Amino acid sequence: MSGLKRSLRELLRVSSGGAGVDLAAIDPGTTPGLPSAGVVGAAPKTWARSQVAAIGTELGRQQEMLFASAKVEPAAGRRVLLVLQAMDAGGKDGTIRRVAGTMNPLGLQIRSFVRPTEEERAHHFLWRIRRALPPPGYVGVFNRSHYEDVLVPRVESLVPEQIWRARYGEINEFEEELAEGGVTLLKVFLHISYEEQLDRLLRRLDDPHKHWKYEPGDVDTRSRWVDYQAAYAEALSRCDTARAPWFVVPANRKWYRDWAVANLLRETFEGLGLTYPEPTFDPERERRRLLDLHPGSVRPGVDSVESK
Amino acid sequence: MSGLKRSLRELLRVSSGGAGVDLAAIDPGTTPGLPSAGVVGAAPKTWARSQVAAIGTELGRQQEMLFASAKVEPAAGRRVLLVLQAMDAGGKDGTIRRVAGTMNPLGLQIRSFVRPTEEERAHHFLWRIRRALPPPGYVGVFNRSHYEDVLVPRVESLVPEQIWRARYGEINEFEEELAEGGVTLLKVFLHISYEEQLDRLLRRLDDPHKHWKYEPGDVDTRSRWVDYQAAYAEALSRCDTARAPWFVVPANRKWYRDWAVANLLRETFEGLGLTYPEPTFDPERERRRLLDLHPGSVRPGVDSVESK
Repeated sequence: MSGLKRSLRELLRVSSGGAGVDLAAIDPGTTPGLPSAGVVGAAPKTWARSQVAAIGTELGRQQEMLFASAKVEPAAGRRVLLVLQAMDAGGKDGTIRRVAGTMNPLGLQIRSFVRPTEEERAHHFLWRIRRALPPPGYVGVFNRSHYEDVLVPRVESLVPEQIWRARYGEINEFEEELAEGGVTLLKVFLHISYEEQLDRLLRRLDDPHKHWKYEPGDVDTRSRWVDYQAAYAEALSRCDTARAPWFVVPANRKWYRDWAVANLLRETFEGLGLTYPEPTFDPERERRRLLDLHPGSVRPGVDSVESK
Repeated sequence: MSGLKRSLRELLRVSSGGAGVDLAAIDPGTTPGLPSAGVVGAAPKTWARSQVAAIGTELGRQQEMLFASAKVEPAAGRRVLLVLQAMDAGGKDGTIRRVAGTMNPLGLQIRSFVRPTEEERAHHFLWRIRRALPPPGYVGVFNRSHYEDVLVPRVESLVPEQIWRARYGEINEFEEELAEGGVTLLKVFLHISYEEQLDRLLRRLDDPHKHWKYEPGDVDTRSRWVDYQAAYAEALSRCDTARAPWFVVPANRKWYRDWAVANLLRETFEGLGLTYPEPTFDPERERRRLLDLHPGSVRPGVDSVESK
């Protein structure tokens, strides 16, 4: 179905070698893994959109098997958690709308993390994250996450270095614990260029229907672009583990971004080898119970309440 | 756009006269408000599906205006809450998938209420409901709700009559309080026939991929169909108020059900008269701030981390 020679999980995984991730070496305008022009045709955007819809149908099926499995075996705690991180205007909201939007909303739990409240700041940085985990059987999406806590406090010098630096290890331990508890983690950094961010922020200012998405503070954050890229690079390098891998999706082209994230989700689900669970009852016996109930003579559905 | 002579909110609203609701007098196989055959054509199902998609686009726009308004004016607490109730196999899950599924998942909060836990039972019956309300700016969907507490305990004799009977008043007060707090309530009962429920439960038994949806306890509930219909009729009559109205959607035909719920949501949104909020900043000043930042010479996006 995917037409991919190598999986996107393989192609987009951050290199976890000692050298670390060099974000500047990954061009945000590229489209790794995209099939050849012969497959994609003259309108790659149209092709990608139809692929996302088709993958969405498959994701819905996988999601249903996950939900059904958890209903029968809740103790396994099986669930999937997509963590999305990006610079401002990096496309997190759009990815959720276009990719998570193809799935069944009933089995989806989306959590957005904004600047911590006073109550949240009084707790350990993982406190609010634990409370936002998807229940067994669900697909969770984190729109920003605990990774903000190794980005903002570092770049804005909100806490001493020894504090934020210790968080890499805490995050790795936490995610290992999640994996033990049945959570399959898929962490995606949507990688846009400095120029692309400017274009997108300007477009928000041009369109009165997009003004609500614009924050004056985004300009201040943008002024520290290099520091944020460095903070991302270190977080991605230090917290890319076997059970909680990081992927970098070039995200200047929205259609590629959506296609890539949909494929990463599909491949992640396929790796789980889900099936529909065996029934916990005898279907034949249940059929008889149903058919033996009010056999013909009594038809409560057409009797009025008064005639009871 | 709707092609309706009378609004569905008008057509499907339960009669709140002293006589109460007579569910047996509402045929679950009908399609109130559906345009004439000349409009719908030979394939009403296909027509309805395309209408739901078109309404979904409009709902997405309304949802964005709601979200944007709440961002600018959170204290107004403005949000929409769709409450779905139905007998087993009545189509709650399908409605959520097909109707809520057309909306933006980012501004949607779905909560399913199952048998109360021990902790929940130790609290007032509205405790778990309050904790599940959508935040300002969101569209909430309740898959079952506090109405279960005037249905199951009554039919199964779990609590004394004076307790469940007092709940009608408690619910009306609670919903009035929600309306005061900015919540626009849309309460929908999906009305299927006794025969249709049998068909659907049997189909679940026939299809191994649907076994997980089947509960042997559904047969016991089905055996008390008349009592449940009476309990519904009283709840819908007693708790249909001006600010928290109840609608009965004939739901034997899934395509009609989805079309009707989508239209009820659309009409409800239109009644809110939402607009995009005015910006809280000066767009022209922000444009200059953005363009003055690193004007040309410094291009952090292409500098590597090491070169900083």
